[in-house]
Amino acid sequence: MQANTVYGALRGLETFSQLCDFDYGTKTVQIYKAPWSIKDKPRFAFRGLLLDTSRHYYPIDIIKQIIESMSYAKLNVLHWHIIDEQSFPLEVPAYPKLWKGAYTKWERYTVEDASEIVNFAKMRGINVMAEIDVPGHAESWGTGYPALWPSSSCREPLDVSKNFTFEVLNGILQDMRDIFPFKLFHLGGDEVNTDCWKYTPHVKQWLQERNMTAKDAYQYFVIKGQEIAISKNWTPVNWLTLAVKFGSEVKNNGNYIAVYKEETFNTFAEKLNPKTVVHNWLGPGVCPKAVAQGFKCIYSNQGVWYLDHLDVPWDGFYDAEPLEGITDSTEQELVIGGEVCMWSETADPSNVQQTIWPRAAAAAERLWTSKEAAPISNTSEAALTRLQYFRCLLTRRGVQASPVTNQYARSPPYGPGSCYDQ
Amino acid sequence: MQANTVYGALRGLETFSQLCDFDYGTKTVQIYKAPWSIKDKPRFAFRGLLLDTSRHYYPIDIIKQIIESMSYAKLNVLHWHIIDEQSFPLEVPAYPKLWKGAYTKWERYTVEDASEIVNFAKMRGINVMAEIDVPGHAESWGTGYPALWPSSSCREPLDVSKNFTFEVLNGILQDMRDIFPFKLFHLGGDEVNTDCWKYTPHVKQWLQERNMTAKDAYQYFVIKGQEIAISKNWTPVNWLTLAVKFGSEVKNNGNYIAVYKEETFNTFAEKLNPKTVVHNWLGPGVCPKAVAQGFKCIYSNQGVWYLDHLDVPWDGFYDAEPLEGITDSTEQELVIGGEVCMWSETADPSNVQQTIWPRAAAAAERLWTSKEAAPISNTSEAALTRLQYFRCLLTRRGVQASPVTNQYARSPPYGPGSCYDQ
Repeated sequence: MQANTVYGALRGLETFSQLCDFDYGTKTVQIYKAPWSIKDKPRFAFRGLLLDTSRHYYPIDIIKQIIESMSYAKLNVLHWHIIDEQSFPLEVPAYPKLWKGAYTKWERYTVEDASEIVNFAKMRGINVMAEIDVPGHAESWGTGYPALWPSSSCREPLDVSKNFTFEVLNGILQDMRDIFPFKLFHLGGDEVNTDCWKYTPHVKQWLQERNMTAKDAYQYFVIKGQEIAISKNWTPVNWLTLAVKFGSEVKNNGNYIAVYKEETFNTFAEKLNPKTVVHNWLGPGVCPKAVAQGFKCIYSNQGVWYLDHLDVPWDGFYDAEPLEGITDSTEQELVIGGEVCMWSETADPSNVQQTIWPRAAAAAERLWTSKEAAPISNTSEAALTRLQYFRCLLTRRGVQASPVTNQYARSPPYGPGSCYDQ
Repeated sequence: MQANTVYGALRGLETFSQLCDFDYGTKTVQIYKAPWSIKDKPRFAFRGLLLDTSRHYYPIDIIKQIIESMSYAKLNVLHWHIIDEQSFPLEVPAYPKLWKGAYTKWERYTVEDASEIVNFAKMRGINVMAEIDVPGHAESWGTGYPALWPSSSCREPLDVSKNFTFEVLNGILQDMRDIFPFKLFHLGGDEVNTDCWKYTPHVKQWLQERNMTAKDAYQYFVIKGQEIAISKNWTPVNWLTLAVKFGSEVKNNGNYIAVYKEETFNTFAEKLNPKTVVHNWLGPGVCPKAVAQGFKCIYSNQGVWYLDHLDVPWDGFYDAEPLEGITDSTEQELVIGGEVCMWSETADPSNVQQTIWPRAAAAAERLWTSKEAAPISNTSEAALTRLQYFRCLLTRRGVQASPVTNQYARSPPYGPGSCYDQ
């Protein structure tokens, strides 16, 4: 086996392991149809899985199980959405009260825990991209430091008017820099409702003194966050979507959700740092606009690659195309890859693996394999057979992967039967 | 720590481990409220969990995960319901075509696999009680040896009229004796519909020559099976229920199922070997009758201790009482314990752990703890708090245990929150 890097060798060994088959008749490991000659490389460099440890806490052993399972599908980035409005589980030595925002005194990650995860992932060829989602999705920060809230009735977004807010953000990023060596850092930026900035007296005054709207202040926050990340030698990633009118609604997993003005990409794209990686979440069409303006892009169109959308079947994941709508080859190269997202509102250690697998493996094939070798088709029998086989391989390796053909993710098998048929 | 046996020491170490708490403030392991003095012993000697590997196949690593998790709750018997009508996954060297009844060539256990499981369990203080369910629930035997079927249209029960049937049964038990050192062996015997024996010419003739009814032949089979097991120095266990009229129906997990005459306990109790351990499955009241006749009994009343009955909440398991209806202390001693049953019609590697846990832990407390220390009450806040804490301990150890208070087992969490509240 030859590879240019140790990571290439790891992927090659994974492929090799999947060629091995235990023959129960002879009780030997066989490689059928040998000799094999396989020349392989990934289609996209960035093949990610998001894990949200704020809506529910995942113990270290569960996170390690997920990382290990990722390596089987050649995914190579764990996007660790560590903190959100519900809980702040991570230790930050510079601001030790922050993890008072954890659900309980037990649902926490020490600096050592986080480093252990990063190293465990590294040994499996997986980078950890950490995320601190600002300025929205951050209510839990104020449990330890209430000054980060504009007021007791305005707890999100973080107080844009105080230097302390950016001191804390800087302190978190400084401490995290020691833990997370990966070149990308995710700054969030999504779903920010700035309404209460306008009604909180000291923030309102701050805005007026600077002749800024709340929207201007949102941009100010995003760009200041980027500057801090860049100063620590990180490339910033931001959740961004297309411009949507304030108050409009979009269908999200069967429910209508409000889309806030303050995450528009178009309105201040020119102010974003040119290094910015645009992370497309809400729907299709973001990456084409982002790459047209020279930004790199990560594809996570929620209509097809959100694992918590249980009604998306395996072929919905499989048929997604990160380069959809992008024809220029220079622009295509700016799409660094894609990511399936395991948001945790209704996922926790009891059901996370079977919500991830096997659907994430369908996306993983899309991200790894050339388009010619993995044609898009709802009725691809070959892909279904591969995925069923892979699902059973996962279970053999101890991963709780769900039946492939259930039309609602992670639902139990309908009745008795072989793993290979379900 | 003092214990009379190595198994007592193992349980003591488990208790000790559960007193240990990681303090995230000091980053040290603490034992709060020390010093502790605990004198402890189990209420029942037999504390079981049934796993059905026929309706779905469980890879070795998944079975090991289950065994490991059992030790955390001090369960000490894995009742391995290996084979059923749907598949025959086990290798039997004496009759090598039997595992042709496996779902696929991959969904099999070698003799070495089975021994590995037994040894893995032994190291954790867990015995493996194997089951070969005869003469019903055995259709898959005939895939490799069609002569075991009375005819191609009568595939169950096994052909009572042929010596070959008992030769195969003897061969299986002989080979299994080398694998399973535990003193108990389960011979099944439940849900046997003998109708087609009466209509299959050569079986009908065999019955007539012996002046036997089909019911007599069922008894003949059960007792002959017991003799074979006893000849190999096993104590036989049989699924048995109270006499129910043929064709009557009982409510089973929301559905009405037929109850077959040929598993009545009363009608031939006097013919059963006196060593027989009666395994109570269908409903309450079996153990009182069994122990009154001097038999030992295992309590698995399906109304409360069948894990596949998803509508039984944690307190349904907790409030079950194996000694219900038995007041005489000599008779009480004949109830050797109880067992929660994880039938696999709609459970497979993707969801087995969260169907087992945490409800099995509620039963485990009932089996371990004295009645005085674990009072039965639907509103036992103390028990609920313990179980929530134990569930989070399981997840910390990598086990996919479900939220405790979901009113439908293994259902996902309703929304974001702490493990300790869900």
